[in-house]
Order: sequence, then structure tokens, then C-alpha cells
Amino acid sequence: MLVEVTDAADPRLGDYVSLRDSKLRRNLEQAEGLFIAEGEKIIRRAAEAGARPRSFLLQERWLAGLDDVLAGHADVPCYVVSAELAERVSGFHVHRGALASYVRPPEAPWEQLLGAKRLVVCEDIVDHTNIGSILRVAAALGWGGVVVSATCADPLYRRAVKSSMGASLQLPWRRMADDDELQLLRAAGFTLVAATLTPGSVALDEYRPEGRVALLLGNEGHGLSRRWQEAADVAVTIPMAEGIDSLNVATAAAVMAYVLR
Amino acid sequence: MLVEVTDAADPRLGDYVSLRDSKLRRNLEQAEGLFIAEGEKIIRRAAEAGARPRSFLLQERWLAGLDDVLAGHADVPCYVVSAELAERVSGFHVHRGALASYVRPPEAPWEQLLGAKRLVVCEDIVDHTNIGSILRVAAALGWGGVVVSATCADPLYRRAVKSSMGASLQLPWRRMADDDELQLLRAAGFTLVAATLTPGSVALDEYRPEGRVALLLGNEGHGLSRRWQEAADVAVTIPMAEGIDSLNVATAAAVMAYVLR
Repeated sequence: MLVEVTDAADPRLGDYVSLRDSKLRRNLEQAEGLFIAEGEKIIRRAAEAGARPRSFLLQERWLAGLDDVLAGHADVPCYVVSAELAERVSGFHVHRGALASYVRPPEAPWEQLLGAKRLVVCEDIVDHTNIGSILRVAAALGWGGVVVSATCADPLYRRAVKSSMGASLQLPWRRMADDDELQLLRAAGFTLVAATLTPGSVALDEYRPEGRVALLLGNEGHGLSRRWQEAADVAVTIPMAEGIDSLNVATAAAVMAYVLR
Repeated sequence: MLVEVTDAADPRLGDYVSLRDSKLRRNLEQAEGLFIAEGEKIIRRAAEAGARPRSFLLQERWLAGLDDVLAGHADVPCYVVSAELAERVSGFHVHRGALASYVRPPEAPWEQLLGAKRLVVCEDIVDHTNIGSILRVAAALGWGGVVVSATCADPLYRRAVKSSMGASLQLPWRRMADDDELQLLRAAGFTLVAATLTPGSVALDEYRPEGRVALLLGNEGHGLSRRWQEAADVAVTIPMAEGIDSLNVATAAAVMAYVLR
């Protein structure tokens, strides 16, 4: 349903305001129960994943490319706006001109996640690109799902969905209520493997897990908290050249997820 | 040597113009034989790597943090500018307020690279973040160097240096004159291992190389060219879940560089 909009203050565009203000967006998206997809590719992924659109916000020249997706949601408003208006509402130059707002899908239930053989568990990852990349890696390497700590960045934040290439919408994931829920993993028979840089940990090459594995990844700056380290059954590290910065957390996750898959 | 500059057209700031215009910058940086470091951390890495500064461009409040680096180059001009002026000259909001221009160091000679046991060889990687990440990964995992094809993105471009965390300045690397130079690798006893998504290639897990390894990585969009694939001794792939996008080239590089190191 095409609707031309020419006023940046039009309340129907409320889902799309200030997309670069991550604090404002977190509150808005949680309160409204929505997430934003950006770019044709991610909008297609959302359609494939069965996400339910609230609206689309497109510049005219992007209509044709998303014809089929829009036809599948003929009852959903598609606001057609100029590039200037899109920028005024969203606060940035919209990459590739296409945005859509969706109903946030429910998180995967614990039962589903605890049935997996391999889970990534993220403590307090703050960068949305990193959390998205971790979901992409977990999906690509066949891991069963991702669990994020109470304070971890939102896997459904626009930039996370984008860097996940849509894996945020397909791979089962859920947010922990608190750190005690690590015990659910243990009770379900998972070995809790802490990814760490600490000397004295087991070299990744020398570690061959049996049974279910939960790979614990820590914050970009300070790694896993003491509490999570203590909760882990084993601490594993990627041997690295001396004097070199550690790998980025998403890159380290890929190496570990490959070796432990 | 602190020099206050208040005119955006001052020719002494010529090294820093239009930093976001990658085509203009490529020509300028090649012609002048320079590269740009951005941010205190990378400027420190450049100092550690022994890079020779042409000048610094700092906002006043960043002077104190780089005191020691500046003291080590008392003869080099340090242009002190306002945030507005820095943005007017460079064309973007300068992250963390510190820039420096350096003499481009010579590339590593072939003899040095051919003496390594492990080399990454990049064909036509176009994204500067990717080429930087690949250098970071190669350095962290102890590979001996990187070779880039004639058309590959510049490892010393500002964003590449940044995403490499300075590895572009420390790890030996060089650019090929043309594809025939792949034969230098072969003549030096390297096994040429093509990283590929092609079905029918050897699964990474099942491949254990002997002797020297050159890992060939292809362009982000279309992978390795036919010519490079044909030049390779073996094609190796990371087994991935069906229906999932392949890993980003830098992430795939990390997994392969770890397993084949």
C-alpha cells in the first residue's frame, strides 16, 4: 500500500526517527516491540525469515527492486519519501535507500536452545557489528544458537541485523535474565568453554571437547568477567604471535567456532 | 615543532585533504609517497614501527596524549588546528582528533617474503577494512607476510592501517607487478592453496599441507579469478551450513590461517 509522505514530522514515520541514536532507539524499539531492517538484501532476509512488517520506508527508485516483497504485504503501508526526507527523519544518509520496520519476533525458548549441541554465549558484547558478526559466524558454521547476557548489545538492532547478514532473524537466540542462567546450560550437560587470552589456559589445538559445548565470549575491552570465568569448566585460548594485538572478538569467535564445531 | 594553522587552504596541510575521497587519495599518496595514520593508537604503532613522519595534524586537546611521540620528532611540524578546520580540510569528522602523515616505507623485498613458511596472497580485495583485517589476522597468527595483487586495495590506506591495528606497518608485505609473479612462489617451494566456496574442493579439515604454504584469497564479490584458481595446487573450502551466506573474506582468512598455520 503506497503512501506518499512529504512531512518529516508525520507521526506515521515514528518507527524511523533518529536511527543513529542507539540509546533512544533501544528504548523506542523495546517499548514498541519493533526492529529495523536496512537495505534490500536484509529486507529480503526478513521476508524469508517470516518477519511481520509494520511498514516500509522507501525512496521511489527502490520500489521496483522490492516489488515482490511489497506485493506479499499489500496491506502494510509503504511510505514513499524523498532521499532528503529519509535523511531528515532517520538522521543519516540512508544506505541504499530502503528501510522497513518489523514486529520483533519472540526470542527462542530455552528448551530449543538447550536441545542444541553447540551454543555461543556472549557476555556484554557492546559493539553491534560484533554481535551481528558472531551470529553470522555461528549460523555459517552450523552452531545451534546464541545466548546473550542481560547487558549484551541487541542482536536485532539495525546494525547488528545488517552485519549478521540476517542471521539474527534465522538463528535461534535469546537474552539471559541474569548470570544464574548459566546453570541451565550446565544442567543440560553443556561444557562451558571460556574463550580467553589468559596465559596458562588450554591451547585451542589441544582441546577436543566431548558432548555439548557452550562457548563463552567476553566483552571487547576486558574479556569475560571473573564470575563467568569461574563458572566455566575450562579456559581455552588461541595461541598468538607475541607483541601482536589479539584478534577482534568476532574473528576469534570464528576460529574457535570452527575448531570446536 | 608546534605550528598553529587557521586557514584551511594553507598548502602545508596538503597531505590531509579530502581523506574520504579514496580515488583522489590513492593518486595523491602514491605521487607524494605518503600514508596517513589516524588516532593516537595507530600513531603510536607507526612510531614503534619506525615510520618517518612528514607532519602531524592535531587538535590542541590531543597534544598532551602524544607528548612523548612529538618529543621524539621535534624537527617535524605539528600543525595545531581547531576541530572545525580539521574537518574542513579532511572532509570528515576526525575520529579522536589526531592525524599524522608519514613517508611510505618501502615494500618488503621478494627475498624476505619467499623466506617465510606461510604467506597470505590477496587477489583484488577491494575493501580497505578487509585488507587491513587480513593483515591483522596474518600477524596475530604468526604468518610471515602478505602479498597483494596489482589491483588489490592499498594496505597503507588510512582505513586499512586502522583496521590492521598497525599490522600494515609491521608485517612484511609487497604488491605484485603482475599475476606471473605467482610463479615466484611456486619456484620457492610454496604450495598454492586457493580458498574457495566451490563444491568439490577439499574440506579444510581434511587438508594438512606439508612445507611452505601460500594461501590465496579472492575478491569479496566473485572470489579468485579463473587464472588464480588454475595456478593453485589445491582448492580448499570451509564447510558451511546450507542456505547461509559465506563468511566474510577476513573471517574466512582467520579460520584458514589458523588451521593451516
